[in-house]
Amino acid sequence: MSITLPQGFAAAGVAAGIKAAGTPDLALVVNQGPRKAAAGVFTSNRVTAAPVVWSRRALADGRISAVILNSGGANACTGPAGYADTRTTADKVGTLLDIPVDEVAVCSTGLIGVRLPMDRLLGGAERAAASLSATGGEDAAIAIKTTDSVHKTAHVRADGWTVGGMAKGAGMLAPGLATMLVVLTTDADVPAAVLDEALHDAVAVTFDRVDSDGCMSTNDTVLLLASGASAARPSDEEFADAVRRVCADLARQLIADAEGATKDIRIDVIGAASEQDAVDVGRAVARNNLFKCALYGEDPNWGRVLSAIGTTHARFDPDLINVAINGVWVCKDGTVGEDRGNVDLSGRDVVVTADLAAGSAHATIWTNDLSVTYVHENSAYSS
Amino acid sequence: MSITLPQGFAAAGVAAGIKAAGTPDLALVVNQGPRKAAAGVFTSNRVTAAPVVWSRRALADGRISAVILNSGGANACTGPAGYADTRTTADKVGTLLDIPVDEVAVCSTGLIGVRLPMDRLLGGAERAAASLSATGGEDAAIAIKTTDSVHKTAHVRADGWTVGGMAKGAGMLAPGLATMLVVLTTDADVPAAVLDEALHDAVAVTFDRVDSDGCMSTNDTVLLLASGASAARPSDEEFADAVRRVCADLARQLIADAEGATKDIRIDVIGAASEQDAVDVGRAVARNNLFKCALYGEDPNWGRVLSAIGTTHARFDPDLINVAINGVWVCKDGTVGEDRGNVDLSGRDVVVTADLAAGSAHATIWTNDLSVTYVHENSAYSS
Repeated sequence: MSITLPQGFAAAGVAAGIKAAGTPDLALVVNQGPRKAAAGVFTSNRVTAAPVVWSRRALADGRISAVILNSGGANACTGPAGYADTRTTADKVGTLLDIPVDEVAVCSTGLIGVRLPMDRLLGGAERAAASLSATGGEDAAIAIKTTDSVHKTAHVRADGWTVGGMAKGAGMLAPGLATMLVVLTTDADVPAAVLDEALHDAVAVTFDRVDSDGCMSTNDTVLLLASGASAARPSDEEFADAVRRVCADLARQLIADAEGATKDIRIDVIGAASEQDAVDVGRAVARNNLFKCALYGEDPNWGRVLSAIGTTHARFDPDLINVAINGVWVCKDGTVGEDRGNVDLSGRDVVVTADLAAGSAHATIWTNDLSVTYVHENSAYSS
Repeated sequence: MSITLPQGFAAAGVAAGIKAAGTPDLALVVNQGPRKAAAGVFTSNRVTAAPVVWSRRALADGRISAVILNSGGANACTGPAGYADTRTTADKVGTLLDIPVDEVAVCSTGLIGVRLPMDRLLGGAERAAASLSATGGEDAAIAIKTTDSVHKTAHVRADGWTVGGMAKGAGMLAPGLATMLVVLTTDADVPAAVLDEALHDAVAVTFDRVDSDGCMSTNDTVLLLASGASAARPSDEEFADAVRRVCADLARQLIADAEGATKDIRIDVIGAASEQDAVDVGRAVARNNLFKCALYGEDPNWGRVLSAIGTTHARFDPDLINVAINGVWVCKDGTVGEDRGNVDLSGRDVVVTADLAAGSAHATIWTNDLSVTYVHENSAYSS
C-alpha cells in the first residue's frame, strides 16, 4: 500500500514500454485532497536532469497534485528537447487529471543522455490514469525500480493519520541524496511550510547520510505530499518524527539493496568536536574503496579506517583515535588494540565505531562494501 | 641502474625476512657526495607513519646521506614503540655507514598497524650495507615492491649530469601522493633549496595528479638526493625540467601497474577558468567509481562524466560542457553529441577530454579503471 495507505491518495504503476524488458516503468501518484500541500528535496548535482528543473519550479508554491515517475531513462543531459519532453509529460498528466500543469511533478531515472520514447510514455500515462486506485501504491513502487532487486515501501501510522513512502535506488548512492526517487504521502492536515521543514530535517539525517558509492546522481528527488484527508492535525514535532522514521526506514532499504552489496555497514562516529566533523569522518570512511574491499573480504583492516580519517579536516589527535569493528576495539589510542582475530565479520551487518576523542558530537553514515558484483553490474549496465 | 646511474651513489637490495614470502624487502641508498643535499615531499595524511615523522625531521636541514627503505610493513599506527623502531633503524644505518643518525631517512611500506620484526630488519641492514655497490640501483628498486607487479625506474641524462629514480606503489594511489615511495638521485651539483623547489614543482604536476583509487596513504615519501659528483651545475630550469621528466615517467609507471587496472585513463580537462578548477574536475572524474566501472566494461558512458563534473564547484555552465572519449565528442553542449558507437575502447589507453568552455586553463589527471581484480586484490591482501 505504502503511498496509498494515507487517505486521499490514488496511484498506479504500468508497463509503458520505456524499458526494453517490458517490465513496469511508469508510476502515477495523485493527491485527491482536500489539501494539496507538498515539499521536496532535489539533487545538489549542478548537472541537473530536466525533470528536476521542472519539478523544482512546480513546487515553488508548495502545491503539487500529481507526480508522474518513469524508470528506463533519466532525461538528463538531453538539452532543451529533453526539457520539452518533461513539459509535455506534465501537460499530459494535467489534461488527464484536469489539474493545472504546474501542479504536476515529474521524476525520471535510468540512463543519462538518452531522450525518452515520448509516444510510449504518453500512452503509458493514459493507461496509468485509467488504472489509478486507492490500493495502487505497491504497483507504483514496483514501476520505479531500476537495478533495485526489490521495491521499497515504508509507513508510520499515528493517531488518526499516516505517513507512507516509496523509494527506488541501488547505485550512484551518495550525499546530496542518491540516485533515488522517493515519494512520501500523508493524510495529516499539514501546511507546506511544515512539510518543508520536516522533510529537509528528515533528509539531512537519513538519505543524506547514505553513501553507497560516493557518486551523486543528476535526478535525485524526494517529494512529500499531504492530502489532509484525515483531518488530523499532528503537532509539528509528532509529524516531523513520523517523516523522519519513514525516511530512515527507506534509507536503510536503499543501502540493503545497493548494487552488489554483501555487507550493510553502519559507521558510527563518536567523540567528535562537532556533528559536521563526525559526518565528514564517516563519509571519508564510507568512501574508502580499500576499506570497502577489505570488508567484502571480511578482513577487519582498521588501518584503512585510520588512513581514511587522516584525510579529513576534522579535529582529532591521531594518537587518541579508537576504532571498533563489530564491538572489538581493534585500534586504541591510534595504534594496535584488541586482537583483530576476535572480530566476527561473517554476518551481513557491520558496525564500525570511530571515536575521535575530541568532543561529544556524533553522527552515523550508512554504506556498503565494494564487491566484485558492483563492478560487474556497473560495467555491464549502462545507467 | 636507475638511482645509481648518477655518480656518487651506491645502493643495495636484500631479503631481510620481513616479508613472509622471503622476497627482497630491504633497500639501502647511500649518497657518497661530495655534496649531501636533499629535498623531500611527504604524505598530507594526518595519520602519519613513524618513518615519515622521522624523515621529515631528518630532512629539515636539507642534508641526507642515506635512505633505508623496507617493504612488508608500514610502521604506521604503531605508537611510540613504532617510532622507537624507526629511530633504532636510523641509528643502525648511521653506525654501519659512520654517518650522523640525523642524516638517515627511513621509509616503510606495507600493512598498517603491525610492528616491524626489528631483529630481521637490523640484520638485513647489515647485509645491505655490506653489499652496497654502484650498480645496486636495480636491486634496491626490486626490494621496495609490495603489490607492484614490476619494479619502476626512470632516468634523464643531461649534459654531464643525470637524474635517476625508483618508485613503488600500486594501490592506495591518490592525491597528496600515493601509497608510494620514490627516491630520486642526481649527480648535479645543486643546493638543497633548488632541489626543494624543483621537487615540489615536479610532484605537483606528476605524482599529485595520479589518482588511482582516491585513497591516501600514511607513508608516502618522495626524496631527491644530490651528490654533486659530476661537478656539473645545470641552470635551475634545466634541472627542474629533468626532475619533472623523471617524476612524470615514474608516475605513469605507477598508474600502469595499479592494482587490477586494465585501462590507463588520461583525463584532460580543458577550457577551465583556472588550473585548480581543471584539477578539481579531473579528480572528480577520476574518483567516480561508476565511470571507472564503465570503462572496465568498455562502455563510453559519458553521462557518468557529466554527473561527476556536476559535483564540483568549478566554474562552468552545464549546457556548454563538451566531452570526448578517445577523440569522439560524445557530449556537446551538455547533451548528446557524436555517436557513442564510434568510440573504440578496446585498447588499454583511454583519453577522456572534458571541455568546460569557461576559460583557457587546463590540467591532466591520470587514473585507471575499477576492475574485478582490484576488488579481489584488496579484499584478499591486508595492506
